[in-house]
Amino acid sequence: MPHTARPAPKSFEPRNPDWEATVRGSFARQAVMRLIGAEMGNLAPGHCEIRLPFRADLTQQNGYFHAGITSTIVDSAGGYAGYTLMPVGSDVLTVEFKLNLLAPADGEHLVAEGQVLKTGRNLVITRGEVYAIKNGRATHCATMQQTLMTMYAKKETQ
Amino acid sequence: MPHTARPAPKSFEPRNPDWEATVRGSFARQAVMRLIGAEMGNLAPGHCEIRLPFRADLTQQNGYFHAGITSTIVDSAGGYAGYTLMPVGSDVLTVEFKLNLLAPADGEHLVAEGQVLKTGRNLVITRGEVYAIKNGRATHCATMQQTLMTMYAKKETQ
Amino acid sequence: MPHTARPAPKSFEPRNPDWEATVRGSFARQAVMRLIGAEMGNLAPGHCEIRLPFRADLTQQNGYFHAGITSTIVDSAGGYAGYTLMPVGSDVLTVEFKLNLLAPADGEHLVAEGQVLKTGRNLVITRGEVYAIKNGRATHCATMQQTLMTMYAKKETQ
Amino acid sequence: MPHTARPAPKSFEPRNPDWEATVRGSFARQAVMRLIGAEMGNLAPGHCEIRLPFRADLTQQNGYFHAGITSTIVDSAGGYAGYTLMPVGSDVLTVEFKLNLLAPADGEHLVAEGQVLKTGRNLVITRGEVYAIKNGRATHCATMQQTLMTMYAKKETQ
Repeated sequence: MPHTARPAPKSFEPRNPDWEATVRGSFARQAVMRLIGAEMGNLAPGHCEIRLPFRADLTQQNGYFHAGITSTIVDSAGGYAGYTLMPVGSDVLTVEFKLNLLAPADGEHLVAEGQVLKTGRNLVITRGEVYAIKNGRATHCATMQQTLMTMYAKKETQ
Repeated sequence: MPHTARPAPKSFEPRNPDWEATVRGSFARQAVMRLIGAEMGNLAPGHCEIRLPFRADLTQQNGYFHAGITSTIVDSAGGYAGYTLMPVGSDVLTVEFKLNLLAPADGEHLVAEGQVLKTGRNLVITRGEVYAIKNGRATHCATMQQTLMTMYAKKETQ
Repeated sequence: MPHTARPAPKSFEPRNPDWEATVRGSFARQAVMRLIGAEMGNLAPGHCEIRLPFRADLTQQNGYFHAGITSTIVDSAGGYAGYTLMPVGSDVLTVEFKLNLLAPADGEHLVAEGQVLKTGRNLVITRGEVYAIKNGRATHCATMQQTLMTMYAKKETQ
Repeated sequence: MPHTARPAPKSFEPRNPDWEATVRGSFARQAVMRLIGAEMGNLAPGHCEIRLPFRADLTQQNGYFHAGITSTIVDSAGGYAGYTLMPVGSDVLTVEFKLNLLAPADGEHLVAEGQVLKTGRNLVITRGEVYAIKNGRATHCATMQQTLMTMYAKKETQ
């Protein structure tokens, strides 16, 4: 296709000067992240990374990470990628996500990456990828498409 | 539309005479279900129910059940609904699912229901619903569409 | 599960007294519906039906209705189901949809049904089903989950 | 995240020596592509591009390409991207796809790109992007995640 058809990758301008503290503070209040042992990694405007070390109590019947656990960290990685771009006093809500499982989540840890594709006044569209790391090799084990809603401070917006 | 356009609801014939023991045995081996405190409820051919009592360590930043926890139980409810119809010696794999969050998962417990829509040689399509129960009232808080794969005993089928 | 867990089916109150004329008028302006020969059938608050007679020029390589044509009518059925509930002067936008193809779309005509599951200030969640009618028998050939946005008259809301 | 976590991009080896003729031949048999005026562009193992010039009869109520038309070409771009990798005598079936609409499909033509993410024995997972080209500028107007099934020559596989 013509070169013109591929727009340059977007860089995003945060609207909240304290975006990083706001996002890390919200993550710290997600009790379920402590329960499963997830840690927030790199954070940038429109991007978020969540890391999850293997634990036997996070597995499904075959001893791999449970798909629900994979979805828990990638939903959060996408949600916080979007939240980095939301205004002061707002909150983020997942409207929906769609997850394809590409390979067994078999590794010493998982890394979930969330990346914003598009921001609008109310909605933010993200993509998420999950990699299983084993003996230093990464396997792409899941891919997600997600829609987020910005919940503005003073008014109900959904 | 003409009455003819609505087919009668399907009833499903299990291929595994021990379908119930097989499914409950597999659920019992999902360590993550013990971690979060999920219980398998009613089970029927093509149908599965999973119940999850509220715990503070299952919440997101606002104190509701985390969307990832909702997806964990509804993915499993759909997966086990499909597994009730799979042959002896097979296993079930989630290919993908899509979850819409309809309302905050705010309740004393969640109930996830999985229902098979269609079965094929390799693929099973299911729907899942999640209800949040509070003071005896139910709120429909999530709806899912899911694709499962039957993993046959002797050969790699995906 | 306890009876309490199943909320009574919602009935919806239109906010636009001329909802039916508004929806049928918008459908009449969708040039693509004339191109493929789709007709709007029953319409009710929160519900819409679209009917598509078979034509050889709507097919894929095996002579069945093309999946894209199936998605065209079910996306519109869901979108117009939502639009029946939107206020005067607003417009409807599809945010996203997810379609599972359950069986070949093999019939003399297709019937797509859209049904609203939940309405919010900005977002409306719908479900869609597509049936292929052949010799008076219906086959459930596709199922959809969809998110719509209400575009309010005076302000940009996405 | 550690460099190890990003696997090198896959290159795909076709199993059908006549993959290009097979794919272009199947596309030529899709009557609906002639109806709407879609053309197949670049084709490579695991990749397919479909181009659609604007026509007034492809529009929704606001004069943009209808979302169903966007989904028709991106479903086909993903499907044919997968089909380039399938064996001689097989056929391709869309199991499901999920489409997010990112911007109005407003342009002189649309370009849909399908790219295989992962291939298995029966299933192929793809991603699709749609760009609207206007005055030489491209707008990313839709993104898709799709699951395909390989239909083998001699046996029913779904």
